[in-house]
Amino acid sequence: MSVLENNSVASNVVSVVPVSTTSRSYDVYVGIDLLDDAGTYIREAAGGTSAVIVCDSNVGPLYAQRVQESLARAGYAVGTVTFAAGEQHKRLCTLESILEGIAKLELSRGDVVVALGGGVTGDMAGLAAALYLRGIQVVQIPTSLLAMVDSSVGGKTAVDLAAGKNLAGAFHQPSLVIADVCCLHTLDHDLLSDSCGEVIKHGVLADPELFDSICRHPINASGYDDLGMARVVARNMEIKRDVVNADEREQGLRQTLNLGHTLGHAIEAASNYQLGHGSAVAAGLCCVARAAEALGWAEPGITRLVEAACQAHGLPTDTSLPHEVIRRYAVHDKKRHGQAVNLVVPRRIGSVFVRKTTLAELDEVIRLGCGTRRD
Amino acid sequence: MSVLENNSVASNVVSVVPVSTTSRSYDVYVGIDLLDDAGTYIREAAGGTSAVIVCDSNVGPLYAQRVQESLARAGYAVGTVTFAAGEQHKRLCTLESILEGIAKLELSRGDVVVALGGGVTGDMAGLAAALYLRGIQVVQIPTSLLAMVDSSVGGKTAVDLAAGKNLAGAFHQPSLVIADVCCLHTLDHDLLSDSCGEVIKHGVLADPELFDSICRHPINASGYDDLGMARVVARNMEIKRDVVNADEREQGLRQTLNLGHTLGHAIEAASNYQLGHGSAVAAGLCCVARAAEALGWAEPGITRLVEAACQAHGLPTDTSLPHEVIRRYAVHDKKRHGQAVNLVVPRRIGSVFVRKTTLAELDEVIRLGCGTRRD
Repeated sequence: MSVLENNSVASNVVSVVPVSTTSRSYDVYVGIDLLDDAGTYIREAAGGTSAVIVCDSNVGPLYAQRVQESLARAGYAVGTVTFAAGEQHKRLCTLESILEGIAKLELSRGDVVVALGGGVTGDMAGLAAALYLRGIQVVQIPTSLLAMVDSSVGGKTAVDLAAGKNLAGAFHQPSLVIADVCCLHTLDHDLLSDSCGEVIKHGVLADPELFDSICRHPINASGYDDLGMARVVARNMEIKRDVVNADEREQGLRQTLNLGHTLGHAIEAASNYQLGHGSAVAAGLCCVARAAEALGWAEPGITRLVEAACQAHGLPTDTSLPHEVIRRYAVHDKKRHGQAVNLVVPRRIGSVFVRKTTLAELDEVIRLGCGTRRD
Repeated sequence: MSVLENNSVASNVVSVVPVSTTSRSYDVYVGIDLLDDAGTYIREAAGGTSAVIVCDSNVGPLYAQRVQESLARAGYAVGTVTFAAGEQHKRLCTLESILEGIAKLELSRGDVVVALGGGVTGDMAGLAAALYLRGIQVVQIPTSLLAMVDSSVGGKTAVDLAAGKNLAGAFHQPSLVIADVCCLHTLDHDLLSDSCGEVIKHGVLADPELFDSICRHPINASGYDDLGMARVVARNMEIKRDVVNADEREQGLRQTLNLGHTLGHAIEAASNYQLGHGSAVAAGLCCVARAAEALGWAEPGITRLVEAACQAHGLPTDTSLPHEVIRRYAVHDKKRHGQAVNLVVPRRIGSVFVRKTTLAELDEVIRLGCGTRRD
């Protein structure tokens, strides 16, 4: 039952986005000041008797107590497991300490892990829930814009290996996602701007109206109110939902979410992850648009539009990395299939296609797209 | 396509057991001297271009080279990752080193992990395959009797936490299982005997004929030939298959495989894992049979039959542990649901039922079943 069908959803829920994958159906609540009601929503969606909040050392002091109190009011026995913040801790040894924390609180099969934080937390807590007793429920409460618009929906979880990012993980859909845009008030402005790379990507991928709107009103500008932000977040989650519903395990359509990522990942990795993920995606998006326009794969003028959207959000529109370096990282992408890369190509704003690209064609894309911006 | 439908299966395959779960269908080959043909079978069942053999430091020197050469003959790029033998290494840090080894060999999504060894290896390699790139194929080549008759079929994988055994894992069905009974020639005789606990369990669970047969011809007796052993192994795998087919994720019928395990796990854990798993299951099986007969839940005479089967295989038929200790471990069983334990009760040889047992009833079962054997 969607919460829209009963009367229990408070008026500060701006939007409910139902997600329906082959493995699980669940709702995404987007709204304002939702944390204090999290326990009620989780009780309805997940049940169980115990809950463990998993958060990092940045988010814990800001929000864990409110969520913990809300869960306690909803009748849960609650504990919190906190790990050191930072992508460098997204490793199996941190996962082990989270799992030991869950085990210490004696969660059983009907109980719930609550992932409270950004993308790293969602990944780690989601994977811990996927593995504990071979799978218990997880509720995602994303607190960063990137986690709200991208990683909290779709069920992908992972940790990094020394050999590369996100190489070990699982698909594990949440039982509920609660996106409270008020959490963005405490988000570092640079991180907020960085996240806009994924929002622009969603516009190019599927929604000319969203694209136009954020070009006119950049979402990292001051004066963006909570209601406006909630609407943007909800629209992004719908776009991601539409793709994930159709293809939970990334066999086909879900690949399109990789728009901007083949070159973006390479740019991000080549910077040794000093460049933010969203910024790298923005640069990758502009590079692939330039190449696609030059090769006649995309409508004329698309590059100018994509570049303008990135510039409006203070995001990079190109890279100065040597082509050889980008190529080396791009062909090591884990989504490579033998001697070809499935490149997501923008056709026009709101429409993309997947092109099986040989390594020779990829060279051409890099040559035409990277380091070629004309100002 | 089952291999029985084509002509590629060599005559030393004694039995092919097809398994069909909701997530994957696959075959189990049971036979004599199959290792040298493993590459051919794996090529047909799994495809891919690269394969990584995962084995421990005991099994590696015995069999890894034969399997590696067979895979190379079948056209695979092959590597081997070896980890230190022993249950104490069934932990996330060992899993990480296996995953790094797989990543170093640059396996991609269509490639294959080959688990060559006993239950620990099957669990670790299976979980590594479940997590690497969020899931690549695994082929199980069990080399111990316990792994052949129990863990290699059904897709359960796990590692231990400090808080308990098998607390973190995944369901990940193999693409193929190859059980070569010749591997049992190098198996320590005590380990072979210990494994018979699970074979007796299968007889009590589902097959009076198997039960009678192994009582008359104990399978750890000298003079058991390869063909006879292959038939026993195949029958055990069929029993496990029938349960797993019906219930991949242990929601209902699969619980019956837990026969003897509620008390057996407690006895095993209370011994600090000094008692072998099969021996603990044998003792647990006799204890629950005694209690079931005393409570009128089982047909009269079942205890004598189960005890005789265990004695014939040199396995324990009771425990001298204090009831309070058994109780403490039993109620901590991870399969506990709230304040009740789903106890699998033997009704007669070949038939069991699951009884939702309150903690008070469980006390009664322990009082009547444990430390009460009359000689």
